[in-house]
Amino acid sequence: MCQLLGMNCNVPTDICFSFEGFHKRGGATDHHADGWGIGFFEDTGCRLFLDYQASSISPVAALVREYPIKSQNVIAHIRKATVGKVSLANTHPFMRELWGRYWIFAHNGEIKRAPPLQGHRFRPVGDTDSEQAFCWLLEQLTVRFSDEPCSDLLDQALVELAADLAGRGVANFMLSNGLWLAAHCATHLHYLVRQAPFGQAHLVDNDVTVDFSELTTAQDRVAIIATQPLTDNENWIKMTPGELLVFRDGQPTRLCGGALHT
Amino acid sequence: MCQLLGMNCNVPTDICFSFEGFHKRGGATDHHADGWGIGFFEDTGCRLFLDYQASSISPVAALVREYPIKSQNVIAHIRKATVGKVSLANTHPFMRELWGRYWIFAHNGEIKRAPPLQGHRFRPVGDTDSEQAFCWLLEQLTVRFSDEPCSDLLDQALVELAADLAGRGVANFMLSNGLWLAAHCATHLHYLVRQAPFGQAHLVDNDVTVDFSELTTAQDRVAIIATQPLTDNENWIKMTPGELLVFRDGQPTRLCGGALHT
Repeated sequence: MCQLLGMNCNVPTDICFSFEGFHKRGGATDHHADGWGIGFFEDTGCRLFLDYQASSISPVAALVREYPIKSQNVIAHIRKATVGKVSLANTHPFMRELWGRYWIFAHNGEIKRAPPLQGHRFRPVGDTDSEQAFCWLLEQLTVRFSDEPCSDLLDQALVELAADLAGRGVANFMLSNGLWLAAHCATHLHYLVRQAPFGQAHLVDNDVTVDFSELTTAQDRVAIIATQPLTDNENWIKMTPGELLVFRDGQPTRLCGGALHT
Repeated sequence: MCQLLGMNCNVPTDICFSFEGFHKRGGATDHHADGWGIGFFEDTGCRLFLDYQASSISPVAALVREYPIKSQNVIAHIRKATVGKVSLANTHPFMRELWGRYWIFAHNGEIKRAPPLQGHRFRPVGDTDSEQAFCWLLEQLTVRFSDEPCSDLLDQALVELAADLAGRGVANFMLSNGLWLAAHCATHLHYLVRQAPFGQAHLVDNDVTVDFSELTTAQDRVAIIATQPLTDNENWIKMTPGELLVFRDGQPTRLCGGALHT
């Protein structure tokens, strides 16, 4: 199983603290050493940093730890290869353009019955079930909508597509187009929302504490989503199997078939 | 005007020496300080490093200088903004997936009459003429070919599309899909091919000399393409306006309408 990390905020925020703990799970505090990647949206732009070295020793991870890139939507992934060899082409997050926006996707689990693609609009470059699922998901969106729909219609489509994927294997995934971040839980995903009054947080994977009250304003709101909690003194909420949350401005909305629940 | 750098080789090679000189043109030895980017193909995978800071001071550029990523196809770009604001979304190289491969593109010049897109298959995310031209180019390829054609047909299409772009403005550009690197000259592009017997090279932008005979094998062949020569003791070949070269395994082939000339 791989490890996922996501961040969604109402103001551009760096992910250095969370990444400080998370990157250690790639070969140091955990054994997921088959590459890693992180994607940062900055306005409509997106940059991915990928490496097929373990994140605990990767020079690219060292850069990401030291360079406080501020973003409202971030997805990171540490890979434990199950389907597909260790290579850059198989390293998550994957990125495509749709409707004039970049979309990024990372997945944890195994989708044994990966859905077939109908056309050629999106094709996998590597050979993972995850990239295949991402291409299928985007293809299905283009089948439903020729242009970007309103968020209610898009949310409803995501509910249906996530449920379809869930029926084909283990689909813990995160998806973002820079406006929002969707997180689907099949087995393991946790999240928390940091907002005023801010307090201290202490990492699980590294003996580091930060006092967010010194770094934030009263209006800031930051949601962190991870396979397993990253801190040991905060109230992480365990997502339930089949749950799909869409985070906007640091706030989760639970999506259900036919109805949306904030 | 921006600055372009490309590398195409017959074995995976790092671009550290060339980049050592090139990155200084972003704000130090030249005034192109509106962001920069570099894309490395590694097998079918591709990773882009982008920054909107000047390459001479960018932490991401520091990583690229120190981390010898080995690749057979590399495209780098230092931006002097003419069309489109300074932002990550406007930073070259741009990347899209077509026919199950990543394609990257960087451009120097101004395409005042950027070609309109017919459909929605490729859309720009930023607001540069360059990204618009890239999307048009890929769209035109999909209009001609539903799947990847043989190289002769693809080369012929590139000749026609480059000529079309050249009629719309100044189109110095580089394009690669990981198998080859195409370079089109409108005003300024130079290249050289390093092969046995290898000798010393000295940078223009930095007082650094390397002896390639100590770093290479007799079979290695490396083509370097740049807006302006990067070294002052090697025989750079100036490309002529309208010339389109496709580099494969470090070897250039000159493409002309209707005929190919090695």
